Amino acid sequence: IEHLYMLHFRYRYTNRKPANGTLYLTATHLIYVDASAEVRKETWILHHHIATVEKLPLTTSGCPLLIHCKNFRVAHFVIGHERDCHEVYTSLLKLSQPVKPEELYAFSYNPKMPKDNREIGWKLIDLKVDYQRMGIPNDFWEITDANKDYEVCNTYPPEIVVPKAANKATVLGSSKFRSRGRIPVLSYLYKENNAAICRCSQPLSGFSARCLEDEQMLQAIRQANPGSPFMYVVDTRPKLNAMANRAAGKGYENEDNYDNIRFKFIGIENIHVMRSSLQKLLEVCETKSPSMSDFLTGLENSGWLRHIKAVMDAGVFLAKAVKEEKASVLVHCSDGWDRTAQVCSLASLLLDPFYRTFKGLMVLIEKEWIAMGHKFSHRCGHLDGDLKEVSPVFTQFTECVWQLMQQFPCAFEFNERFLLEIHDHVYSCQFGNFLGTCHREREALKIFEKTHSLWPFLLQKKQEFRNPLYKGFTAYKELKPNTLPFSFQFWCGMYNRFDKGMHPKQCVLDHLLNCMSQKMKLEDNATDLENVSPAQYEVSHLLLIFFANSFLEPPALLTNGAIVEEVDIMPDQDQKNKENFVNHHDLPDLHSTMEVIESDAKKEKLQYQ
Amino acid sequence: IEHLYMLHFRYRYTNRKPANGTLYLTATHLIYVDASAEVRKETWILHHHIATVEKLPLTTSGCPLLIHCKNFRVAHFVIGHERDCHEVYTSLLKLSQPVKPEELYAFSYNPKMPKDNREIGWKLIDLKVDYQRMGIPNDFWEITDANKDYEVCNTYPPEIVVPKAANKATVLGSSKFRSRGRIPVLSYLYKENNAAICRCSQPLSGFSARCLEDEQMLQAIRQANPGSPFMYVVDTRPKLNAMANRAAGKGYENEDNYDNIRFKFIGIENIHVMRSSLQKLLEVCETKSPSMSDFLTGLENSGWLRHIKAVMDAGVFLAKAVKEEKASVLVHCSDGWDRTAQVCSLASLLLDPFYRTFKGLMVLIEKEWIAMGHKFSHRCGHLDGDLKEVSPVFTQFTECVWQLMQQFPCAFEFNERFLLEIHDHVYSCQFGNFLGTCHREREALKIFEKTHSLWPFLLQKKQEFRNPLYKGFTAYKELKPNTLPFSFQFWCGMYNRFDKGMHPKQCVLDHLLNCMSQKMKLEDNATDLENVSPAQYEVSHLLLIFFANSFLEPPALLTNGAIVEEVDIMPDQDQKNKENFVNHHDLPDLHSTMEVIESDAKKEKLQYQ
Repeated sequence: IEHLYMLHFRYRYTNRKPANGTLYLTATHLIYVDASAEVRKETWILHHHIATVEKLPLTTSGCPLLIHCKNFRVAHFVIGHERDCHEVYTSLLKLSQPVKPEELYAFSYNPKMPKDNREIGWKLIDLKVDYQRMGIPNDFWEITDANKDYEVCNTYPPEIVVPKAANKATVLGSSKFRSRGRIPVLSYLYKENNAAICRCSQPLSGFSARCLEDEQMLQAIRQANPGSPFMYVVDTRPKLNAMANRAAGKGYENEDNYDNIRFKFIGIENIHVMRSSLQKLLEVCETKSPSMSDFLTGLENSGWLRHIKAVMDAGVFLAKAVKEEKASVLVHCSDGWDRTAQVCSLASLLLDPFYRTFKGLMVLIEKEWIAMGHKFSHRCGHLDGDLKEVSPVFTQFTECVWQLMQQFPCAFEFNERFLLEIHDHVYSCQFGNFLGTCHREREALKIFEKTHSLWPFLLQKKQEFRNPLYKGFTAYKELKPNTLPFSFQFWCGMYNRFDKGMHPKQCVLDHLLNCMSQKMKLEDNATDLENVSPAQYEVSHLLLIFFANSFLEPPALLTNGAIVEEVDIMPDQDQKNKENFVNHHDLPDLHSTMEVIESDAKKEKLQYQ
Repeated sequence: IEHLYMLHFRYRYTNRKPANGTLYLTATHLIYVDASAEVRKETWILHHHIATVEKLPLTTSGCPLLIHCKNFRVAHFVIGHERDCHEVYTSLLKLSQPVKPEELYAFSYNPKMPKDNREIGWKLIDLKVDYQRMGIPNDFWEITDANKDYEVCNTYPPEIVVPKAANKATVLGSSKFRSRGRIPVLSYLYKENNAAICRCSQPLSGFSARCLEDEQMLQAIRQANPGSPFMYVVDTRPKLNAMANRAAGKGYENEDNYDNIRFKFIGIENIHVMRSSLQKLLEVCETKSPSMSDFLTGLENSGWLRHIKAVMDAGVFLAKAVKEEKASVLVHCSDGWDRTAQVCSLASLLLDPFYRTFKGLMVLIEKEWIAMGHKFSHRCGHLDGDLKEVSPVFTQFTECVWQLMQQFPCAFEFNERFLLEIHDHVYSCQFGNFLGTCHREREALKIFEKTHSLWPFLLQKKQEFRNPLYKGFTAYKELKPNTLPFSFQFWCGMYNRFDKGMHPKQCVLDHLLNCMSQKMKLEDNATDLENVSPAQYEVSHLLLIFFANSFLEPPALLTNGAIVEEVDIMPDQDQKNKENFVNHHDLPDLHSTMEVIESDAKKEKLQYQ
């Protein structure tokens, strides 16, 4: 069964002549092959990446189909016959909104590797090793399996880190007083001064309720840091939101009931505000020929950078409390799985250079997001479900990391592409890591038996994700970013990633990465040189990077030009998708599973707006 | 005579404790020495850099003095005694607003170099060589000395490039029909296709006047490019402004009177709109604790990036007309010395990689700005004069170059610091290049006999201005920048340059420049290595850059941190100013020329806000 269309294809923001092409729908991808290009050019869109498909009103040139993707690609097809367009439309709706988890790509994705490798892949990230790195277990903290049967909290992992001083009764008592049983557990321990970042959900305090065990729990956390006479409790919500929750028997800690806590609100907005903000931002990005005023006004009205700044400010507050005030911090929002995940992971990234390495970022995401029950499935809309649960919470975290990379270009082992690749795969459902909402659900889905882990896949491609400016683990310790408004940039590379001419910085990255790979090839020679060199000592302490003006191909001007005439519809990303895909599908198979629709090349068009 | 104060000093945007210090006023600089710092820290401000000095209302801590500099430094001093403050105030007013050109720094600046060197310095940039590079003289263009006695135009240089087909009568006739005699002359010839960029002032056309010689002049320009049947005439003003000029007997070309011209308006605003826009932008930069909304709204309201985009769009239009449509373009605004200079120089920069080298940018500035009579003296307010003549026209050009560097980080031989250094010296009056308003005036001022040229001074410091990512002359030919709004960034490095923590990118630059200088040191060794190496061939084709993680000092976190507590009041710029200064003043002399005012260290304060 093969869907075959001849189509016109056009990129957003350019007024090129539309190109004819053929559209294929496979089990996993929509593929557009440009028939008018001299070189074969293909555009691959994963069905799971499709956020919305819209049929627009019929025009003289045909029936327009508008596709918005979760990775911010926008495709505008024009198909000659209304009937064909409707067929593509309904197919895409079905393909892009699976109902059952088993329909997700991860359960059919088969990179044809030995079973053992798959299993080893899942063991690559071991959170226990990260706790050991922090010195845990120690005199104050222990890893407990109190939650092994999800008795404490069904959205927490089986193993959690709590103060040694908190006994089982305290833990269970506290869990009864915390929304969804999400008790205070350790997120990060700053080994140097024993200050800890802990996380939980809001207390069920209503207007006056209190809980002795919860109070003991906080006391135990505070006392696990003997260096500080107090601890912070940070509610990341706007005060008004927290107060409104009291009417529902939830709310926030009463300072009078807890010993030596300093209570603080940080006004990060909720998932609904964030969803709507992103929607507004994307409308700005999609504006045709926007004026400077349209852009700046739209950017301001969207509130997006304001929210990014709020998350960053919160992360900086935590890092500063831990590092400079030497105080432990307990963080929560409502359920403690959105804003809390953002803020805790950001603070760890600011405090600890390990999390700025490839492995470290993987650990951080596994620890603060996956293990602690960020509801990826709902927030990313993996399955046909409640649209009000969808929110770009992880996208915001990704952007915060990127903003930090802009301020500290030498402090991260990875580059922007690594962030984009992770972000893509959070939505792609190609790997098991981000399926479901919590550890318990992932166990039920048998993801560890049936799917692959993303992380080994990314490590294989480490070379292209490397930051050539990285100065190594020890160059920077904690980061102290500037959070004044002009320190934040609009992230073209994410939100306008698929628009031509939007990758100005990447030519530097390509350039430096090319140099790195030249270096690889020449390293053996260099080693030989060292051995015979009179300057042996100096050279042996150098990492050599070769800038080879003469034999490195400069990136074509094309990649920087907005005025460029050619249509290049096979950007890197597509090439990558294709490679992933080709790993486990042969094109002949692909054809045999597609339905052929005969079409008039002159009438059926695809436009990419 | 020495002014000596004990003062409090504080940076903008930080809430540090004010620091006590001493203020010195010399003949050329205001110098603040921090008394509270452990290491001696000095801040040097050139009097010529001072744009405004304000005495603010008396506060309990003393009398505040607010200084705004032309290089966007803002200094906030608080001086204990009103009397002292007033004295500093009046001294600074006098020192910062010289009345006679002879009082300008350039006439006293003496770097103690042999007289010959000074003269050779002035010969470094020879515009004739640049015309030769374009292939001029050729069959169509000639360099004429028709203006040697300023008979054609007193704000043009003695030698100008005009079409061979335009005889003396045509030239003189046209000059009578162009505002201030600024006839069409060649700015840049695109050798490959004979398309030329020419520039002039508006015609004295009023509602119906015409001039045969002017029409002949344009015809001669068009016919000098046989490959194109038409030429563009670009009026860079908004149409309304151009129309208003008709009432004063000026205006724009009537398409009916000229053969085969395509007339086009490009709406770049006038000097008054630009001055006011910058003022608004600076208010945004000076806002204390601005919210994201304050910043984005302020940025939008200032219109600054809208104007930058307008200039860039105009440059792109010209480059595209020349390169892609193969058509010549004649550009003017009103007098043809502000917008016209911006647009013509930008187009040249887009078309010709030479202008993206050190030497090339110098030539471009000498050719399109200095020689062609951009009124630096008035636009920069070098002398006490009409404030309505002041406008950031050159600053906008500098920013356009910077915006291009952001989009094409490997296409420029120089880095951001080079642009900032040139910009500083346009206002510093330390060198003769930017004094006066035109060649005639500079001759009258005898700048070639009495002052030094900036360019050799900059070339000496080439190493620190080098762009380590530069790929060489041949890597990029013409640049096709994206001019969509999100391709423009707010330039912190210029407008918030003196705020702490505003240099995030510079650590990369430092890092790469360090690598370059390591490379220099190791190059000899590398050469030795090559000679004994079995991989001789490969290595001999490489430019080696050494990334030395182990022995390069990472820039202190300080330079990136906003939370940093220390006050570093001796940034690079100050160090540089100091070095320039120390070249020709000995500190003992300095003391002897200053008046000592005894002061109470506890009462007299200086704040840097």
